[in-house]
Amino acid sequence: MLEVELDGDGECEITGLGSLADAGPGQLSFLSNPAYAAQLAATRASAVIVDEKSRGDCPVNKLVSSHPYVSFARASAIFHVTEKPPAGIHPSAVIDPEARIDPSVSVGPNCVIEAGADIGAHTIIGPGCIVGAGCVLGQSCHLRRAVVLYPGVRLGGNVRIDANSVIGADGFGYAFDGEKSIKIHHGGSVAIGDDVEIGAGTTIDRGAMEDTVIGRGVKIDNQVQIGHNCVIGEHTIICGCTAIAGSVVIGRYCIMGGASGAVGHISIADRVEVSAMSLVSRSIDEPGRYSSGTGHMKTSRWKRVITRFQDLDDMATRLRHLEKQVKKD
Amino acid sequence: MLEVELDGDGECEITGLGSLADAGPGQLSFLSNPAYAAQLAATRASAVIVDEKSRGDCPVNKLVSSHPYVSFARASAIFHVTEKPPAGIHPSAVIDPEARIDPSVSVGPNCVIEAGADIGAHTIIGPGCIVGAGCVLGQSCHLRRAVVLYPGVRLGGNVRIDANSVIGADGFGYAFDGEKSIKIHHGGSVAIGDDVEIGAGTTIDRGAMEDTVIGRGVKIDNQVQIGHNCVIGEHTIICGCTAIAGSVVIGRYCIMGGASGAVGHISIADRVEVSAMSLVSRSIDEPGRYSSGTGHMKTSRWKRVITRFQDLDDMATRLRHLEKQVKKD
Amino acid sequence: MLEVELDGDGECEITGLGSLADAGPGQLSFLSNPAYAAQLAATRASAVIVDEKSRGDCPVNKLVSSHPYVSFARASAIFHVTEKPPAGIHPSAVIDPEARIDPSVSVGPNCVIEAGADIGAHTIIGPGCIVGAGCVLGQSCHLRRAVVLYPGVRLGGNVRIDANSVIGADGFGYAFDGEKSIKIHHGGSVAIGDDVEIGAGTTIDRGAMEDTVIGRGVKIDNQVQIGHNCVIGEHTIICGCTAIAGSVVIGRYCIMGGASGAVGHISIADRVEVSAMSLVSRSIDEPGRYSSGTGHMKTSRWKRVITRFQDLDDMATRLRHLEKQVKKD
Repeated sequence: MLEVELDGDGECEITGLGSLADAGPGQLSFLSNPAYAAQLAATRASAVIVDEKSRGDCPVNKLVSSHPYVSFARASAIFHVTEKPPAGIHPSAVIDPEARIDPSVSVGPNCVIEAGADIGAHTIIGPGCIVGAGCVLGQSCHLRRAVVLYPGVRLGGNVRIDANSVIGADGFGYAFDGEKSIKIHHGGSVAIGDDVEIGAGTTIDRGAMEDTVIGRGVKIDNQVQIGHNCVIGEHTIICGCTAIAGSVVIGRYCIMGGASGAVGHISIADRVEVSAMSLVSRSIDEPGRYSSGTGHMKTSRWKRVITRFQDLDDMATRLRHLEKQVKKD
Repeated sequence: MLEVELDGDGECEITGLGSLADAGPGQLSFLSNPAYAAQLAATRASAVIVDEKSRGDCPVNKLVSSHPYVSFARASAIFHVTEKPPAGIHPSAVIDPEARIDPSVSVGPNCVIEAGADIGAHTIIGPGCIVGAGCVLGQSCHLRRAVVLYPGVRLGGNVRIDANSVIGADGFGYAFDGEKSIKIHHGGSVAIGDDVEIGAGTTIDRGAMEDTVIGRGVKIDNQVQIGHNCVIGEHTIICGCTAIAGSVVIGRYCIMGGASGAVGHISIADRVEVSAMSLVSRSIDEPGRYSSGTGHMKTSRWKRVITRFQDLDDMATRLRHLEKQVKKD
Repeated sequence: MLEVELDGDGECEITGLGSLADAGPGQLSFLSNPAYAAQLAATRASAVIVDEKSRGDCPVNKLVSSHPYVSFARASAIFHVTEKPPAGIHPSAVIDPEARIDPSVSVGPNCVIEAGADIGAHTIIGPGCIVGAGCVLGQSCHLRRAVVLYPGVRLGGNVRIDANSVIGADGFGYAFDGEKSIKIHHGGSVAIGDDVEIGAGTTIDRGAMEDTVIGRGVKIDNQVQIGHNCVIGEHTIICGCTAIAGSVVIGRYCIMGGASGAVGHISIADRVEVSAMSLVSRSIDEPGRYSSGTGHMKTSRWKRVITRFQDLDDMATRLRHLEKQVKKD
């Protein structure tokens, strides 16, 4: 199940998980990030998932895996008790008579489900969620708590959304008439594929005319903002606090680092990785890793450096001038 | 109504809107962003709103406008079915007997309206909203879903707020006594002008002594943070994920780009535009466009560049030294 | 109580607070930020809290303090009417029979309190809050409105959390198996110390195996994201919109400026101050002030500068080359 080879005591009983530094007897740990390799020798875990290379350095029972972190993820599912409220509708929930709710669905206290919503088998709507009119949810979804789906949002199967995320609010579109901003009404919606997971406090706006689209297997962290009409490719990962403006097309298997951003109306190729707090300010056509920013330094030094930075065009001109002069000499 | 001149078949029936690339027969599209000009020739829309300059390039019925995007915004209102729940108070809502609610108001399921709140005619309080004690809402406001107004917040007329926004929480003010932080209690509130629109997951803090003020016609996107005692001038636009610290005064008709920021206790003149993810770190006195940041590049190159950046002061000194030497020679 | 020395009319009655610029008769103001010193001479406040140095410049009654801002914070508590709903459980709240709730607790309308939650004396659960199964809240906490605590979260005493914050959602952890992301289930929780205050719309994720820990006296502003397994030291201050990745250890008495960030798996020493919108991209071992970024400038100039920035490695090489050449000459 974990796709590992046992090297050690097959009778050793594992009752839980722990980090290399903190695990104790009966616990299973893992080594994946080399930064923690030094902790392996001293671990008190009963067993550790390691790769072939670290097998020799592991003083306890070993589960040898070609991908220790993947094996560990699988182990985490074994020891996890998933929330599983009973099927049925809590009496405090307010359900429109025109909503279609599979009998296997669980609807928690204080939920609101509006007219025409259609909720698939084994889906869990946690406490305090609001499912707008005409929303369609696939099978085995889980809105964990206080999620808001605006009308017409569509989720595939096995979609998980954490607390206080808002899917399908109007995009931020205004036309300026010279005096004031005139709202663009948004007739599109949001379509979310199978196996998508969305963290807490994230917002995904509905499209102006077509839908905003989140591809299958995409994972989105907390407090991410995705603007109207974005298309996010399958299996892309978007870390916390990332801000993606409207009409951005992001490829498959990308990673947007924490607090990164992308300006509107650009596209990003497949398999692009953007560093933390980097801004993608024009389209990226090639896979690879991209960054912006300056790295941190002592503020005293930084104050001098940014003064120079602002004069960089002048410095470059002077350098070119000197080069000519020295060459001439 | 759209302020356009028809150039084509006046009998053509339009039933909806679509983008240039995706619209089909019966749909109206528009061309405003030159980035999409190439799509005009191939559009299958039945009609397109264009400006005079693009009229000749449009192969279908034309609606010629001096501001195509404004005309399109007006068209979007025609085809939009706005949420319009019936007047009255849902039986699951908890209404303090001392709240004053106009009979034309709609209060949705699971709302809480506290003592002394005063809600103007035709306002809609969507599901799950909490309106604090003593809040005053003007006419025709719409709190869409799960909006939280802290006590004493005042909204003008025609204010729209999207889901999970929080208006009027305490500002982040502490005095450090050498050992711990002592809270500044906030006696001000938040005053929001007519025609303001606020996206989802946005927070606007109440003032310490005076109010935080959002001017008439201001449009604020999702996940924006506006600190205590800010004053935002009329018709200013604040894009998503922008962070504005306390006591910032922003002028009229400004545009704060996505994920931009402003440090505390500064002022920004009228008609200033700040680029995406740029930080305004001191007051800006002149209108115009301002930016910070570095632009993105391949991470491999970026790593070399930022090493140089940190040495920029040294480089500048050496350049100056060389110049003197070469001149002397 | 304010730890001040009165210099003026001891009979003067103070009925409220005001800023130097806006206070009128009967109001008390303060001068702490030197940026506002010019407003002292013209103030119409009845009394001002000043330090010894500014005493001579104050034209009205003086309360002389060694820390005017601290004295003002104490004064703000005197004039503040704190929300104090009556003890008891609102009939619309949904309380699991296996929750333990002290009789002195106030539970507001539409709250949900799940099985095994344990809520200490004098705690206030404001309207619309969701307290997950097995959560433990100390005495005199205040969840102001619509706060979500996931199962198993533990709060010390005197913890305040503002609206729409989410504590204890799963951390963002996935193992990539080459085709798709496999969820790391999170068995840790969040432990929050005494006297912690958390703003609106903030998210703090639960740990993967151990807990995420927020130390005593920490103050966290709005829309902050704190990743799984972070440890935040006592009395640290985290300003709005800050994004802290997973497994970051931050020391005591630090200040993370607004919209700042820290990448994952690093540590930050005690008494470090990070500037607004700066990214901490590697561990910081020494106390002091740190910054990243470029400072803002006119966009026209900035566009030239960032072109040069991207060539900085080349410029540095050419400068070194010139130096050698000039020396040789």
